[in-house]
Amino acid sequence: MSQWRAHLEQRQSAHLNEFVELLSFPSISAQPHMKDHVRACAEWLAARFKAAGFVRAEVMATPGHPVVYAEHCPHPDKPTLLFYGHYDVQPADNPERWLSPPFEPTVDGDRIRARGASDMKGQVIAFLQAAEALIAQGGLPINLKVIVEGEEEIGSPNLSAFIEQNRAMLEADYIVSGDSGQVSETQPGLVLGTRGICGLEFTLTGPGHDLHSGSWGGAVQNPLHAIAELVASLHRPDGGVAVEGFYDQVEPLTEADRQWFAKIPFDEAKELGKLKLETFYGEAGYTTLERQAGRPTLEINGLWGGYTGAGSMTVIPAQAHAKITCRLVPRQDPAKIIQAVTRHLEAHCPKGTRIEVRAREFGAFAFRISADHPVNQAAKAVLSELYGVEPVELMFGGSVPVLATFQQLFGKDPVSFGFGLDDELIHSPNEYFRLSSYEKGKRAYGMFLEQLAKI
Amino acid sequence: MSQWRAHLEQRQSAHLNEFVELLSFPSISAQPHMKDHVRACAEWLAARFKAAGFVRAEVMATPGHPVVYAEHCPHPDKPTLLFYGHYDVQPADNPERWLSPPFEPTVDGDRIRARGASDMKGQVIAFLQAAEALIAQGGLPINLKVIVEGEEEIGSPNLSAFIEQNRAMLEADYIVSGDSGQVSETQPGLVLGTRGICGLEFTLTGPGHDLHSGSWGGAVQNPLHAIAELVASLHRPDGGVAVEGFYDQVEPLTEADRQWFAKIPFDEAKELGKLKLETFYGEAGYTTLERQAGRPTLEINGLWGGYTGAGSMTVIPAQAHAKITCRLVPRQDPAKIIQAVTRHLEAHCPKGTRIEVRAREFGAFAFRISADHPVNQAAKAVLSELYGVEPVELMFGGSVPVLATFQQLFGKDPVSFGFGLDDELIHSPNEYFRLSSYEKGKRAYGMFLEQLAKI
Repeated sequence: MSQWRAHLEQRQSAHLNEFVELLSFPSISAQPHMKDHVRACAEWLAARFKAAGFVRAEVMATPGHPVVYAEHCPHPDKPTLLFYGHYDVQPADNPERWLSPPFEPTVDGDRIRARGASDMKGQVIAFLQAAEALIAQGGLPINLKVIVEGEEEIGSPNLSAFIEQNRAMLEADYIVSGDSGQVSETQPGLVLGTRGICGLEFTLTGPGHDLHSGSWGGAVQNPLHAIAELVASLHRPDGGVAVEGFYDQVEPLTEADRQWFAKIPFDEAKELGKLKLETFYGEAGYTTLERQAGRPTLEINGLWGGYTGAGSMTVIPAQAHAKITCRLVPRQDPAKIIQAVTRHLEAHCPKGTRIEVRAREFGAFAFRISADHPVNQAAKAVLSELYGVEPVELMFGGSVPVLATFQQLFGKDPVSFGFGLDDELIHSPNEYFRLSSYEKGKRAYGMFLEQLAKI
Repeated sequence: MSQWRAHLEQRQSAHLNEFVELLSFPSISAQPHMKDHVRACAEWLAARFKAAGFVRAEVMATPGHPVVYAEHCPHPDKPTLLFYGHYDVQPADNPERWLSPPFEPTVDGDRIRARGASDMKGQVIAFLQAAEALIAQGGLPINLKVIVEGEEEIGSPNLSAFIEQNRAMLEADYIVSGDSGQVSETQPGLVLGTRGICGLEFTLTGPGHDLHSGSWGGAVQNPLHAIAELVASLHRPDGGVAVEGFYDQVEPLTEADRQWFAKIPFDEAKELGKLKLETFYGEAGYTTLERQAGRPTLEINGLWGGYTGAGSMTVIPAQAHAKITCRLVPRQDPAKIIQAVTRHLEAHCPKGTRIEVRAREFGAFAFRISADHPVNQAAKAVLSELYGVEPVELMFGGSVPVLATFQQLFGKDPVSFGFGLDDELIHSPNEYFRLSSYEKGKRAYGMFLEQLAKI
């Protein structure tokens, strides 16, 4: 066994304790009152990179949550890898739906349960510990730069500007994102694409204040009726998006695309069972995998108004609200989609209400990379050795805005190399990460750095 | 001036303090955790009736919140009035939308602001203080029984059984409800009808847990899309209710009905201004007043699901929820309407979701009474004297379930006699009662008791 792997094995228990520590920070980027916790998490990480032997490791300000940057470049003659991750996490509302508190990490068999465990503090700490082991046992085989941002879960609103302002500092030969996953515990994958994203929120206002629904019911427009009608207008009966112009930039899937999707392993009955669903549902004429990653979508993420407490309150609320995100495929411009959705909402705003639409501060194009990219080939070699089978090619329906940003700003295609699995309840109560994936991740990242030295 | 009126004037300030005390109880019947506060309010009231000279005054148990019952029947040869009120109040969520805390009553010019001030602790305390003044200054002119319930705001689920079980105790010649109001500060009214009510709540369930809307958006039914579609299906494009059978028992408005509604004073532009609305909206072919009280309606009172906090969370929630109440006109059976709405919801439940419907525990028929009823004539005499103008005839869109209950159980038509005004933000933040209405109410109730002795 190589020395760095022995190093990792000896420290297994101490490493897990560090992972628990990292997961204990409620680094929820979406919630303004969590700001100090987000910052505390960044400071912990920077100190940890420093302790791991990185010559530079610091918390760098942005107009929003800070970036952690670490660098260890001992070889002027060797290539440099820029590794990307994020330390912020999704909100963890509804604590009553968690088996254990979301920021009190709990080990349960092969699972460690905590918000952010799979998405993606698990891969951040695994990468850090692997790099530390290499540094301690003979040194890094290549140069390393690490950027761990604190705003991925809110769409990375400040990251593009940060990268542009620190272009020289971040310059690298290869770029890798750890915000990614594999197919299953036994089947690795190469991620060749993600969808883009844009989002908005809107409020419908009816009367100037809440009204008694006995006195006024039937005589004024109820904003809850209006928002239901408006939200329902966003989709066609066949499941497609009804917004004019939504598909204008979308290239139809080619026969080759469809054959490619058909090759991805997907057990429909098993997946339905995991989701406790009787049927999948979506745009007519497409398979589930095509709908998940090859076609754009418009989703309501939150809808609310009126009385939502126990029992009954006979109210016509003054306002009703909704949050929307769209997932985009190549060529769809997030700014244009926001415009189209806003136009639709304004044009269909029901009589007796007025609408206010607020675009989200983020937006990202979809991303595609070739399987032949040399860094993908390096990943393939590592995964084939670790899993004993070759990785399959994949596309993700989610968005990692930084991928398109790196592509655009550096002209380089970032490779995705992470260890999340799709049943790990990310963005949901009881998120967990497999301890076996965490251990595999540490080894994989170490092997990957060695492999990159051979390109 | 009669002695009892002088009594009231002398105690004006002490009486207001008592009103403040009564308003300080958060007697929210809808919220189980407020149970002890509801009971404390009942106990305070019973003690207060006792102190006012009622020979019997007690808190009586029901399967839900208790009833306050008080009785003072000094005249075996004179008629008996049963006065009805409720001491429970609507929820007061969104405390940030209140100018002062909802259970810290605040006097502001002619207004006393607190949850329950207008609906209807103001008339309960006014009636109590008027009766006390009469008892203290020469005695009651008739016999008096008072029932103040604690579950009106949740639809009086236990009141019918309570009345049936205590039929002999409650037996009376006349029945009057104080849960009512006038047209304006200068224009009194006789309320000749209220709408019935029934309610339900439903939950749509999609996947077994919340999903990442990037990974699964477009490929599974989103319960928020489904609930929007389902709620939108409840109304027709012309504003009517689309539920099959909803109008089956409804008698069309006659020409006489429509002429009667047309005589009710209503300044459309002024009302729109008060509501900060540009237009009224409702079932095609009816006036606003007809829609408010002469036609049935189905209203969503609460709609929610997904992420509703600050910022963005890219989730497809497992569930979405809605609360509904319907207001009914004569002949509509609340149980049949619940069945019809439930059938509609189940039949229209969108693909990829399943539905669970729970009917509310309450339900009441609509109520009508003749303007010629002798107790209405007594009310008319009092109001004419107090306001200097004759009352106009009115109908209310709200529901006072106990009216139909009394009518059914005792075969007697209860008269509505209260002093709320429709701009007093009942069921809304910043509910208030006019101090001038409170003072007028005390005098009116005293005069009314004297007037009833003359029938």
